[in-house]
Amino acid sequence: MSATGTARRLSINQWTVRRASIPELVSAAVGAGVPAVGLWREALAEFGVADTARAVVDAGLRVSSLCRGGFFTDPEPRAARAAHDGNLRAIEEAHDVGAPVLVLVAGGLPAGSRDLAGARERVRDAIGAIADAAAAAQVVLAIEPLHPMYVADRAVVSTLGQALDIAEQFPADAVGVVVDTFHVWWDPEVLAQIARAGRGGRIASYQVCDFPTPIPADVLLARGMMGDGHIDFGPLTSAVSAAGYRGDVEVEIFNQDIWDADPSGVVRLARERFEALVAPFLDPAAEDAR
Amino acid sequence: MSATGTARRLSINQWTVRRASIPELVSAAVGAGVPAVGLWREALAEFGVADTARAVVDAGLRVSSLCRGGFFTDPEPRAARAAHDGNLRAIEEAHDVGAPVLVLVAGGLPAGSRDLAGARERVRDAIGAIADAAAAAQVVLAIEPLHPMYVADRAVVSTLGQALDIAEQFPADAVGVVVDTFHVWWDPEVLAQIARAGRGGRIASYQVCDFPTPIPADVLLARGMMGDGHIDFGPLTSAVSAAGYRGDVEVEIFNQDIWDADPSGVVRLARERFEALVAPFLDPAAEDAR
Repeated sequence: MSATGTARRLSINQWTVRRASIPELVSAAVGAGVPAVGLWREALAEFGVADTARAVVDAGLRVSSLCRGGFFTDPEPRAARAAHDGNLRAIEEAHDVGAPVLVLVAGGLPAGSRDLAGARERVRDAIGAIADAAAAAQVVLAIEPLHPMYVADRAVVSTLGQALDIAEQFPADAVGVVVDTFHVWWDPEVLAQIARAGRGGRIASYQVCDFPTPIPADVLLARGMMGDGHIDFGPLTSAVSAAGYRGDVEVEIFNQDIWDADPSGVVRLARERFEALVAPFLDPAAEDAR
Repeated sequence: MSATGTARRLSINQWTVRRASIPELVSAAVGAGVPAVGLWREALAEFGVADTARAVVDAGLRVSSLCRGGFFTDPEPRAARAAHDGNLRAIEEAHDVGAPVLVLVAGGLPAGSRDLAGARERVRDAIGAIADAAAAAQVVLAIEPLHPMYVADRAVVSTLGQALDIAEQFPADAVGVVVDTFHVWWDPEVLAQIARAGRGGRIASYQVCDFPTPIPADVLLARGMMGDGHIDFGPLTSAVSAAGYRGDVEVEIFNQDIWDADPSGVVRLARERFEALVAPFLDPAAEDAR
């Protein structure tokens, strides 16, 4: 299949087909007519940054983002320094693999700490310490607010408004935000905050996946294929589009059943669901302009 | 033990000791020197409203709240009518049992619906339809925002700000909000919204319980005893106190291990943890004034 029509802005995030190697991911994307991929640092470490970049370019694909930097909240100086250095390396890797965006997950409360406000301040400070390096590398740091159920153990940045409060302290070519439907759909302020993000040119990435219930025993694997949960992708996608976002739309799903399935079939299904539930709400003028 | 000193504003919510009957709840509260109880309609239905009121008064206890009304989101006319009538009965029961507050849980998305905005509008309208009855009965309807992980299947009201947006459309003696630490602690706006609620005289109930991780397989039972999770009760309690709240502080915990434990021991532990972690942040002047 070729990446025509409504699939032209679709990207498959590597973690959606977590078992797939880089060559398998590339092959599944090409086979399903998906023109872009979101990559993870774990896979780069395994296959090599240069080899990955070559495999992607040779297949005619784009890289939409690299996941992920962040984990900024540990106050212990040695751990904070290691996180800082790791994030600088992540920026370099994003540049080298051709990813315009590095996704940042804030990190949770440090072990034994209940100082949520303090952890949130450290996130802001740590992003400030890498913003110049990101701008120099032409990589946008994309702060991803995670669903509030992950605030203790994964990300102290919980809403789009909070992510924008941080991002707006830095130039828009250095720091933006991720709008991930799974994480933000519940937020009564989400449409207003998407519009705010658009006004500032802050939407660095738009990711789609669904929120099914019941939430599984491992809450990190609570995501579902679009159409399998409670999210109405129309209003969110229309808002992101109206906010001026013209980049790739990544399908990123952490789900054991999907991980256990054949990667090529998963990517084909992601394209079908994307074309049915998401693409109709993207700006057609932006499609034509690509 | 007598309800002296820092336990004078403590209330034990019945669902914390769910297996206990009304007499057992009353006995456990008296035995632990806890001066108030929060009741549930299920228990009233079983033991009788008048008998419950008598048992509580005879024991020298207060009723801090009745749980719960709400579940406003079903658009089907017959279901909506049944919910309305049920809520009117709940207001009467709250009045008859001496509860100054009826806690409202909004309800989730109707089966098969993805119209979150529509469900939220119905909550506002349905509260409007019972507000006068509540004021006439001198019962404050307390909208409880639930943690966003429950938005699909339990409550489409997810933040304190959203609850206040609804409550402020009605007189403060008819509609207020519940501040429950478990549901709101993650919210970057929580302290500002508590202050807003205080300015409008909208804090109808303050409930405390903790947020442990990992979240259990049944997410409805994710709550923990104060001190067993990630919540810092100081800043939240200080904010509620500074906002002018002078009512009872309810311990409401849904947790299988706690339900399996001896009710009297649970109530004693709740008092200990309350005195250590919550009471020091309540306004001492308010204590003296009771």
